[in-house]
Amino acid sequence: MRDDGAGDGLTRADRARRVANVLRGQVLRGAFADGVLPDERALVAEFGTSRNTVREALGLLRDEGLVARRRGVGTVVVGRAYQHPLGELSGLAEVLQRHGTVVNEVREARTVRPPLTVARRLGLADGTPAVYLERLRRVDGRPLSLDCTYLIPEVGEPLLARGRETLERHDVFGLIERVAGAPLGRAEVSVQAVVADPATCAVLAMPEGGAVLAVERLTRLADGRPADLEFIHLRGDRLTLHATLDRAARHVADLPVT
Amino acid sequence: MRDDGAGDGLTRADRARRVANVLRGQVLRGAFADGVLPDERALVAEFGTSRNTVREALGLLRDEGLVARRRGVGTVVVGRAYQHPLGELSGLAEVLQRHGTVVNEVREARTVRPPLTVARRLGLADGTPAVYLERLRRVDGRPLSLDCTYLIPEVGEPLLARGRETLERHDVFGLIERVAGAPLGRAEVSVQAVVADPATCAVLAMPEGGAVLAVERLTRLADGRPADLEFIHLRGDRLTLHATLDRAARHVADLPVT
Repeated sequence: MRDDGAGDGLTRADRARRVANVLRGQVLRGAFADGVLPDERALVAEFGTSRNTVREALGLLRDEGLVARRRGVGTVVVGRAYQHPLGELSGLAEVLQRHGTVVNEVREARTVRPPLTVARRLGLADGTPAVYLERLRRVDGRPLSLDCTYLIPEVGEPLLARGRETLERHDVFGLIERVAGAPLGRAEVSVQAVVADPATCAVLAMPEGGAVLAVERLTRLADGRPADLEFIHLRGDRLTLHATLDRAARHVADLPVT
Repeated sequence: MRDDGAGDGLTRADRARRVANVLRGQVLRGAFADGVLPDERALVAEFGTSRNTVREALGLLRDEGLVARRRGVGTVVVGRAYQHPLGELSGLAEVLQRHGTVVNEVREARTVRPPLTVARRLGLADGTPAVYLERLRRVDGRPLSLDCTYLIPEVGEPLLARGRETLERHDVFGLIERVAGAPLGRAEVSVQAVVADPATCAVLAMPEGGAVLAVERLTRLADGRPADLEFIHLRGDRLTLHATLDRAARHVADLPVT
């Protein structure tokens, strides 16, 4: 079952893609405890494929920014992908502080006239202002995400009044509940893969043309009123979303899409 | 609160990014019923920004493959993003057949020697074969995803015996339950944004350098044994994942990551 010259009709690119599929998951799960991938010979043996195919697969992962070649060491894992559980509604910092030191760099925090569609989704009457926050998240100093948040005034104004330092040190979810005294209810989340635009790449210190998870999250107060509409861009090479799903739940109604 | 020349220290790229954030969600949610975006003048009014900023924002969405400029019409939504609920463990086809005609093009279906890590995750002893399926999903004729699946022999062999036509017309989840008679239990899913490699771009008929959602899903039988390990690449411009999350669930233990 070796693929090289086996006449199976596959191109080397197809074979490399399959090898990369398997290795990508291992890299992201932190399966290589010492951060070093097995050498080419070991990978050839493991995948039953040619050395050229293994090299091409490693090249794909290098292009994705997941691994790098280090002289005298071999192929090493670059950085680290954090794993964010999708099944819980947590602020990113609440989850990431389990992994490292989270700092929110506040790029903007002020009252704005929200775009009409944002106002509508937040249930604001035309002309009502909103509070806009833009924060760059760093974990252990390295940029992870750019979060753009629109808040209803009732929730956002008390946060602004606390000043930037509070916003830098705390998650918005926690602040809403503690400072604004407004318990949160449900959130509707959508997740999409996009190539980051140059401005976002620059802010996130990632190479141009890299992929991000674009997350849009509308969070409601416990009484059902929308309070917080966020547009989050997460570096694709630094964060993986996780969930455990149950087959028994397959017949639940479609989730509401607003 | 106009942003142009307001001396707010923002670059036009920053402003364009914010406008694009809001429009992106509208495009993906199908908020423009006729598939045409408001004209530049309307967008300038809605976002309280300059015409150049609006143009740059539309350019970002064009680069992402979400919209196109059509002469005499304006900016139109390209294709359509399907919305896949993350909260249920469904085969993709089970969800997509609500939206259009789903065809699975079977690119490969055979017994292979699985890579060592795949064997381990499937709980297979060294040297045990696995069944490998590779399918290209099309919805209404247009490629949506490339699914590479490793199955334990007990589940995969009965599927192979049914022949390609069965695999083309049916979801693997349904087939496992009906043909192999093995009820499914839970699945562990991870989702990541990556730039698709050239081979994957070619298969999915997407422009080189485009983003995909890379989903890895390990599905277990109802008795807990792993049965099905999938590597799915979904076109970022054609699929959005959705979930509704509850703040009350925030303190649940971290999801198991294998």
